Amino acid sequence: MENMKQIFEPRSVAVIGASNNIKKWGCIIFGNLLLGEFRGELYPVNPTEPEIMGFKTYRRLAEIGRPVDLAVIVTPAHTVKEIVKECVDARVAAGIIITSGFRETGEEGKKLEEEILSLAREGGMRIVGPNTMGIFSAPASLLALMGPLRLPPGEVALISQSGNLGVQIVRWGSALGIKFRAFVSTGNQGDLSSMDYLRYFSKDPGTRAILLYIEGIDRGSLFLETLRETTKTKPVVIMKGGKTRTGLKAAGSHTGALAGDRFIIDSALKQSGAILVNDTEEFLDLACAILHVPPPKGNRMAILTRGGGWGVVAADRCEDSGLAIPPLTDAMKGELDRFLPPYWSHANPVDMVATLRVEAYNDCLKLLARSPDFDGLMALSAGTGPLQAIIREPSWLSLLKKSEEETAEIAKGLAQLQDNIFSLIGELIEETGKPILPVSVRFEYVGIKTFNGRSIPVYPTPERAVRTMVNLMKASRALGGPEQP
Amino acid sequence: MENMKQIFEPRSVAVIGASNNIKKWGCIIFGNLLLGEFRGELYPVNPTEPEIMGFKTYRRLAEIGRPVDLAVIVTPAHTVKEIVKECVDARVAAGIIITSGFRETGEEGKKLEEEILSLAREGGMRIVGPNTMGIFSAPASLLALMGPLRLPPGEVALISQSGNLGVQIVRWGSALGIKFRAFVSTGNQGDLSSMDYLRYFSKDPGTRAILLYIEGIDRGSLFLETLRETTKTKPVVIMKGGKTRTGLKAAGSHTGALAGDRFIIDSALKQSGAILVNDTEEFLDLACAILHVPPPKGNRMAILTRGGGWGVVAADRCEDSGLAIPPLTDAMKGELDRFLPPYWSHANPVDMVATLRVEAYNDCLKLLARSPDFDGLMALSAGTGPLQAIIREPSWLSLLKKSEEETAEIAKGLAQLQDNIFSLIGELIEETGKPILPVSVRFEYVGIKTFNGRSIPVYPTPERAVRTMVNLMKASRALGGPEQP
Repeated sequence: MENMKQIFEPRSVAVIGASNNIKKWGCIIFGNLLLGEFRGELYPVNPTEPEIMGFKTYRRLAEIGRPVDLAVIVTPAHTVKEIVKECVDARVAAGIIITSGFRETGEEGKKLEEEILSLAREGGMRIVGPNTMGIFSAPASLLALMGPLRLPPGEVALISQSGNLGVQIVRWGSALGIKFRAFVSTGNQGDLSSMDYLRYFSKDPGTRAILLYIEGIDRGSLFLETLRETTKTKPVVIMKGGKTRTGLKAAGSHTGALAGDRFIIDSALKQSGAILVNDTEEFLDLACAILHVPPPKGNRMAILTRGGGWGVVAADRCEDSGLAIPPLTDAMKGELDRFLPPYWSHANPVDMVATLRVEAYNDCLKLLARSPDFDGLMALSAGTGPLQAIIREPSWLSLLKKSEEETAEIAKGLAQLQDNIFSLIGELIEETGKPILPVSVRFEYVGIKTFNGRSIPVYPTPERAVRTMVNLMKASRALGGPEQP
Repeated sequence: MENMKQIFEPRSVAVIGASNNIKKWGCIIFGNLLLGEFRGELYPVNPTEPEIMGFKTYRRLAEIGRPVDLAVIVTPAHTVKEIVKECVDARVAAGIIITSGFRETGEEGKKLEEEILSLAREGGMRIVGPNTMGIFSAPASLLALMGPLRLPPGEVALISQSGNLGVQIVRWGSALGIKFRAFVSTGNQGDLSSMDYLRYFSKDPGTRAILLYIEGIDRGSLFLETLRETTKTKPVVIMKGGKTRTGLKAAGSHTGALAGDRFIIDSALKQSGAILVNDTEEFLDLACAILHVPPPKGNRMAILTRGGGWGVVAADRCEDSGLAIPPLTDAMKGELDRFLPPYWSHANPVDMVATLRVEAYNDCLKLLARSPDFDGLMALSAGTGPLQAIIREPSWLSLLKKSEEETAEIAKGLAQLQDNIFSLIGELIEETGKPILPVSVRFEYVGIKTFNGRSIPVYPTPERAVRTMVNLMKASRALGGPEQP
């Protein structure tokens, strides 16, 4: 556990191999640290470039003459051993070895990696990597990462055994509105492994949810124990690569104790309280919901839809996923009759059919969310009423040949509708403590959206909303819901 | 078959129930016809509004005094019977009954629907609907639809048993770059059914691919026969709703001959040459590919990736879907060694690891696409090299403290890279006749993109690219590929 603080909240960072040459990673890493606005001391080390991006350069680590918490190493593989030696001599607490060309390339690289690690171990220096894409850490504004990203601080930690996948998940997640506390690309895990990071974030009070991409698991029983402890208080979502023979081969030499049968691994992870997801979008969809929506207290779902087909698709997916769609009581039908045209479905899914009365959607939302008969609600086509679509065709209203004033008034009224619906969903989640997942059926309009200070996730399809609802149920323990079987 | 031409290519259309009141569907439908720029004669019919959106209004159909091919009926249910009578008297060839409140609401509505249909049948008038959201037809620029959409003409026909789902699939698909020949919301299918439309589009020379959303199937064996005939020349992609008890109930009264066991239905549809998809995004993903990418001639795939994790995820998915990832020959390894850093994976997936040489991706693409060892290629992270990411952070290059001129030069060079990669993919598809599916791993960058006049589909995740590749194999017969088992 020691030295973890110097990795994720260092006061001073040296970049060994920093450069002004954009064709070198040392340039991109140093630029990214500046982009991320690291608040501590920053020392570029390079024997030949006297100044890097406005910073005085040190020819060697020893020249810095002040304490360095963290060294980011971006020099060729054959130089790393010497550099780690210098780090140990300078009492650097931890190193992030970005450099590739070690264990992942075969026997020779493996030997070199082991020599380096043993030097570090003896010197009390902890190592991230080697062959890592680096880390992001919000509390230190530390973007010691190969990806040039601007990241607002948040409460989600991502630990990824693949750097490229991890960086792109962070970028994509950020575009969806997920805010990260930290990201770490674990690389070859020569010293620190996924388990160490998991343990660190499980105790970090600023981390509220943990995402993990793993390929192999070393020290299986210890990992599972750590997982079990963590999931008691924080949701842990795991995406596992290397499930098949082909995938495992591609994952390389991760042949830990748990690299056996995929079903045994999956079930061990689930029993430890983690939520397993099967693909990238499921990973991100759940991450969008996990801090913003409470888990359902049971499996009884209401579905509100503007058209039959989406209701059918959602109902199919619910039944296949173990969610129930209970029938409406007569009392509920009577209430809904007040808002809806006579030809509404009179059943759950509540199909409003083609009513144009814009308040009707909101009236239905309130009734269904507040009903004791349902534990959660899927709000389909929330953002896509026909009148809303008219605003996106600005020329349309001019067809009405009304005065400019009247047209502007209509446009304004229509524009408010969509926000009103999403605002209301945020309010109802807060009021009822139930999950309500809106579906926009517009691929450009997904992710976490904020209305009146309340953030809610919006999904592009009913299928993805249902899948997220099921995963929220699984996250129930860590999110304070009832124990799930 | 008769009168189909008057529906999809009418010379004159009357909108019965047209209005200036935006709270009525008759207003939205009429506005949408204008938005779509229908090229024939357009007659609004309304007994009380003398002028609608600049058009002289007729109080009754009979007043028009000129031939009307198609009547779009948007008046309350209880008026429709009388209107259909008037249509028959005026020898209107076909009607689109938008109005709801018929069979879908119970016995009384069913009786009314049957009376109307029998009137129409006797009068030789064909009916779309009732309870339909209408149609779009590119050859006539006809947007007789409840959805206000601007649609460029294309070659894909969508037949949907759900209007709302269909309209939103069309909107979403259009945003992804899919161009439609036609869309029809089949409604209650009182007269014309999915099968009739399928038969029409199978013979329509302007239609190259057909998408179907169905819930129930009437006249099962005739439908399957039509399907078998169609799939010999055009790919047909089917998404089926109402698979579960709950979904079927939501789908209402579709209890045709094939509404039995879901697995029997699925297998009958597959045996008829259709490609079955399981969710909305799979439907759209395949639609994006189907006209722009040839089917693979076998199942041997190469995977090119900038980072291990995505390669692992793609390889897993391939193995689980029946695609093979054959090993690289020594000759191929030797060739790739020339472009890649020494620590590349030396295996398929070809993991380039963190090479910054921008031309390397293109070099690898060419080698893998042209190799006789592979039938197709998944190009992962095609749009997300680290240098490309720097262009999206415009402040980044200023960190280099170079002259404005030099910075502009670098930015320009980097900006070209992405386009170059996608252009090359388009060229290689053309040259090799093999499918190459690029993955952007950026959710904002998906759908059909055009570079140098060549359109290619771009996918957000490896999982979705693999799924599409598998579906392309299934579409092989209609797309001119080898027979699939």
